[in-house]
Amino acid sequence: MNKIPVIIDCDPGIDDVMALLLAFSSDELDIKLITTEPGNQTQDKTIYNARAFTSYMKQDIEIARGLNEPFFRRLEVAADVHGESGLGDITLPEPTIQESSRTAIDAMKDVLMNSPEPIVLIATGPLTNVGALFLAHPEVKEKISYISYMGGAAVGGNTTPTTEFNVFVDPHAADIVFRSGVPIVMSGLDLTHKSYVTVDEIAEIEELGTELAQHMSSLMKFYIHNTKQTPFHEENFETNIRIHDLCAVSYVITPELFKGDDYHVEVETEGRLTAGTTVVDYMERTGLPKNVKVLHTVDRDAFRNQFFNAIKKMDRQLGQ
Amino acid sequence: MNKIPVIIDCDPGIDDVMALLLAFSSDELDIKLITTEPGNQTQDKTIYNARAFTSYMKQDIEIARGLNEPFFRRLEVAADVHGESGLGDITLPEPTIQESSRTAIDAMKDVLMNSPEPIVLIATGPLTNVGALFLAHPEVKEKISYISYMGGAAVGGNTTPTTEFNVFVDPHAADIVFRSGVPIVMSGLDLTHKSYVTVDEIAEIEELGTELAQHMSSLMKFYIHNTKQTPFHEENFETNIRIHDLCAVSYVITPELFKGDDYHVEVETEGRLTAGTTVVDYMERTGLPKNVKVLHTVDRDAFRNQFFNAIKKMDRQLGQ
Amino acid sequence: MNKIPVIIDCDPGIDDVMALLLAFSSDELDIKLITTEPGNQTQDKTIYNARAFTSYMKQDIEIARGLNEPFFRRLEVAADVHGESGLGDITLPEPTIQESSRTAIDAMKDVLMNSPEPIVLIATGPLTNVGALFLAHPEVKEKISYISYMGGAAVGGNTTPTTEFNVFVDPHAADIVFRSGVPIVMSGLDLTHKSYVTVDEIAEIEELGTELAQHMSSLMKFYIHNTKQTPFHEENFETNIRIHDLCAVSYVITPELFKGDDYHVEVETEGRLTAGTTVVDYMERTGLPKNVKVLHTVDRDAFRNQFFNAIKKMDRQLGQ
Amino acid sequence: MNKIPVIIDCDPGIDDVMALLLAFSSDELDIKLITTEPGNQTQDKTIYNARAFTSYMKQDIEIARGLNEPFFRRLEVAADVHGESGLGDITLPEPTIQESSRTAIDAMKDVLMNSPEPIVLIATGPLTNVGALFLAHPEVKEKISYISYMGGAAVGGNTTPTTEFNVFVDPHAADIVFRSGVPIVMSGLDLTHKSYVTVDEIAEIEELGTELAQHMSSLMKFYIHNTKQTPFHEENFETNIRIHDLCAVSYVITPELFKGDDYHVEVETEGRLTAGTTVVDYMERTGLPKNVKVLHTVDRDAFRNQFFNAIKKMDRQLGQ
Repeated sequence: MNKIPVIIDCDPGIDDVMALLLAFSSDELDIKLITTEPGNQTQDKTIYNARAFTSYMKQDIEIARGLNEPFFRRLEVAADVHGESGLGDITLPEPTIQESSRTAIDAMKDVLMNSPEPIVLIATGPLTNVGALFLAHPEVKEKISYISYMGGAAVGGNTTPTTEFNVFVDPHAADIVFRSGVPIVMSGLDLTHKSYVTVDEIAEIEELGTELAQHMSSLMKFYIHNTKQTPFHEENFETNIRIHDLCAVSYVITPELFKGDDYHVEVETEGRLTAGTTVVDYMERTGLPKNVKVLHTVDRDAFRNQFFNAIKKMDRQLGQ
Repeated sequence: MNKIPVIIDCDPGIDDVMALLLAFSSDELDIKLITTEPGNQTQDKTIYNARAFTSYMKQDIEIARGLNEPFFRRLEVAADVHGESGLGDITLPEPTIQESSRTAIDAMKDVLMNSPEPIVLIATGPLTNVGALFLAHPEVKEKISYISYMGGAAVGGNTTPTTEFNVFVDPHAADIVFRSGVPIVMSGLDLTHKSYVTVDEIAEIEELGTELAQHMSSLMKFYIHNTKQTPFHEENFETNIRIHDLCAVSYVITPELFKGDDYHVEVETEGRLTAGTTVVDYMERTGLPKNVKVLHTVDRDAFRNQFFNAIKKMDRQLGQ
Repeated sequence: MNKIPVIIDCDPGIDDVMALLLAFSSDELDIKLITTEPGNQTQDKTIYNARAFTSYMKQDIEIARGLNEPFFRRLEVAADVHGESGLGDITLPEPTIQESSRTAIDAMKDVLMNSPEPIVLIATGPLTNVGALFLAHPEVKEKISYISYMGGAAVGGNTTPTTEFNVFVDPHAADIVFRSGVPIVMSGLDLTHKSYVTVDEIAEIEELGTELAQHMSSLMKFYIHNTKQTPFHEENFETNIRIHDLCAVSYVITPELFKGDDYHVEVETEGRLTAGTTVVDYMERTGLPKNVKVLHTVDRDAFRNQFFNAIKKMDRQLGQ
Repeated sequence: MNKIPVIIDCDPGIDDVMALLLAFSSDELDIKLITTEPGNQTQDKTIYNARAFTSYMKQDIEIARGLNEPFFRRLEVAADVHGESGLGDITLPEPTIQESSRTAIDAMKDVLMNSPEPIVLIATGPLTNVGALFLAHPEVKEKISYISYMGGAAVGGNTTPTTEFNVFVDPHAADIVFRSGVPIVMSGLDLTHKSYVTVDEIAEIEELGTELAQHMSSLMKFYIHNTKQTPFHEENFETNIRIHDLCAVSYVITPELFKGDDYHVEVETEGRLTAGTTVVDYMERTGLPKNVKVLHTVDRDAFRNQFFNAIKKMDRQLGQ
């Protein structure tokens, strides 16, 4: 079987490294490149975390530095959710993988333009890199089969009442991407609020007793902070840990675990209170082309098993 | 028992006349004034409908003409939902009640300033009249005990994906009212999507066999159009007829049927796509004062019984 | 000869009291009402200054309190230009005129609706009162022959690079007024930069040797601060004292001193940097109705003589 | 003497080709690259015109295709000013220079990164290419000594009352460039309204009697259309032909012909009416760094002589 070639653009970030772990563990993905950008933390921290975690996972993948700030807005990081380092309380060894000598934009462009087959772009950050790439080098768009994106929401937000964090950070970059014509599969809050691990389930990982298991359980427990952000007056998931970014990788490997519908989606770039809102035309009022598959349902047990099995598999590999 | 003095500011509109009917039927309300504004239909049509329905119900209440257009935005009416006349397919006799010789703003101001006790303001339209009143005559605010408002939404919209119709029509007026300091009880879409009558239940009204019963059942059936607007990927209420405006009157009579929580709510007045969104700080991020009780739960059976009993009571009165 | 009935809506303010002085001195104006609003200083200070100066000038005119804050924006006063009191360094006796028992909006509405002839509205502040009046009581508009307005600019600003102070303070109120259909004669910066008294000319007033002369020369010298704001790279009026608000009164008395052209003018109410800009369609691109006469030329000597003669006349009257 | 290495980013456009002609004629410029973008006309037409005119002038310079549309706004071309082809009524021979095989962004990046010395970037279009280059490849910025830019205005506009055409077309791209930290010399309308050739002066060119002379005089006469756009109520230059883009090249060759002052300049990207306004802080209110030298004065005779001499020189070269 041919592997699926992917580029992962991320801002690690706790759930970003979980998404990376799943990607590393998969026999079905061929990771051509990892690029980083500011979001959960600054560019300096996200590229360090990407290098440190990928090194720790004994993967040999090019990691390239992206842009340092959003298109127009001042950067606001999520230190309250991901910690000062971006990786909660854990400490990883110094990375052995060096930062690539080429920029993220150059590397993405070269990988895409030189690929004999279309590539899936997995994006778990604010899309600043992808937006700049599409703006300056629109010729790359036809080399992308689709973007599996964690970000946005059809209803409700987690950063302001109407905005999801990634899109809030750089609405203009997201607007460029959503209007690009490249197919998008959106794992927004509508889905990720259902894509969780419970606090009790962490025990299954802790029982492994290894360092990796300890790190992953530590990250999950740190990240529970995030779960206090429940949608308006819905069932309160106080003990559920939503692993947002994991969905974007999981969908590429096992799309059959997810359900969604196609809608026209635009990004609000202005507004005093609402800039960064993904406006999903769920009532089909605009009559504009359906540019995004908005996922809304996941087989939660299969999703959790996939994640836990990935941890166990990587744990065995590291132990060898 | 003392009656509760109320002013009703509305834009009839199918659900507005249902709200009026409930108010007329109630022994607990003392309706001091009805004012009209554009929204569901133009000012000329909404005041005609208010006069025609109030006359038909044999009520003797002053009905005053409000402003003709929103503060800044061009008027967009909801003829697709309420019909060209604003009252679906029914035809009422020529009204016997004449338009008041004073404007809505003058009448509201006089009624409020001359009232020995605070008045409840029931608002089921875009708030253009109330906004202009508060802007030009802020001294009236202390004469209002609270505003029972049908409009807005904490999550999702029915006009654009993020906006409810009333606030969409005149976001600036709504902003004035939401920032006014007057307590607001908001029956937004979060509540009104649960405040419905089913198509099957209409039979109970049709069985009355009278003209009023026929009119009310005709209006409900016409209005089912509206029910196609379901929130994003929630259970589809295709046969549920949501009587939005009825909530604003019902709450004043029987607050015990409703549950809600206090939040800080602001109105987005700008934005390319989102102007008219009520931004409900359900995550309590702003730290700003909680200015609105956002209703989210209703005893649906009690609500429907209250409405149907009101129809039956008014039917008996008309028959005498 | 019949006098011209006028209402003066102002925010005194140094140049506002100069405008009032000219109006008081004129045999051609019949001042029906003075209303105040926040702008150069807060409402409390502007109404005090209006009462104090009008009392000091031995005039018997109703002075009514207007709104306390702009429609939507947070109030920003011009204490740097007009001083902490709003009247530079001078101290006037306690006012004998009491604040009217009716609000500015009520008083303006009554005066207008009860006037047998159309009234000229002279406005030298941010238009908050007039905007609210027009919004809530559009029926008054037909009782106004025209508005003589000090505010705005066709090119360049004095508060931000593109905005004049009055419009900057309350762009939404200005937008209501500019879209009202009432004819407007605009004394914007294009005119008022040419409507000055030089520092040397003040001697002519000082020579009078009276208290009034001293007050007026003190105010003019304090106000020279303002003249440092020269348009972009034009002749530098460093010793010219532009008496902006005076133009709005002078035009009503002696329109023959001024030249202007009719244009379509709109107010920018949004924009990150430009809210409050009066967009004058001097290239006639919009094709929209010409709603404003934009003054651009003044007979400067005649203008100064008119002002100085008014001071001398009032000085004689006070001396009697 | 070392030549000044330059890249010319343009959207020909009548005054663009005049700017190119001056650059071709100069012994002091070393033109490394010409890039094109949409603005005066579409990308297809501007690159064709650049290729046709450069071929006609017998120059051997790489010409690369830039982006096809502004960052966010829908493209609006200036066919009314530059004609349907973008070059008025003249017809040039088929170009012999082929479109570069690399994109404008790739070519600009490579030329800049491989240059041993800093390069002057001459920009006479909407800055879409430069904005995208800076956004995606910020590392190039340190290779640019400064940008000589035709665009913007301190007061007044020529497209809307407050906007100059180039910035109006793509305010977001301009914002990226103005915030880039690269020094900018701005030949805005404040300067270019003074940088003209009179209708009578064209005779001096016509007398040459050659095809090039005919083409240039034809273009100047076509372009006089533009001169009807006079600043608000200033002297009417009805017979003056302002060769806007010429200034950006002339300044690089002979900066001593121009005077200007340093200001902080920002671009309004939002606003209902004012998006695309260059907000020049000529009152020095913001306290922010002075990022732009805003030219405002030119030695008009020397400017015209330089242009006419360039035509004559190129005419002689073509005749050989």
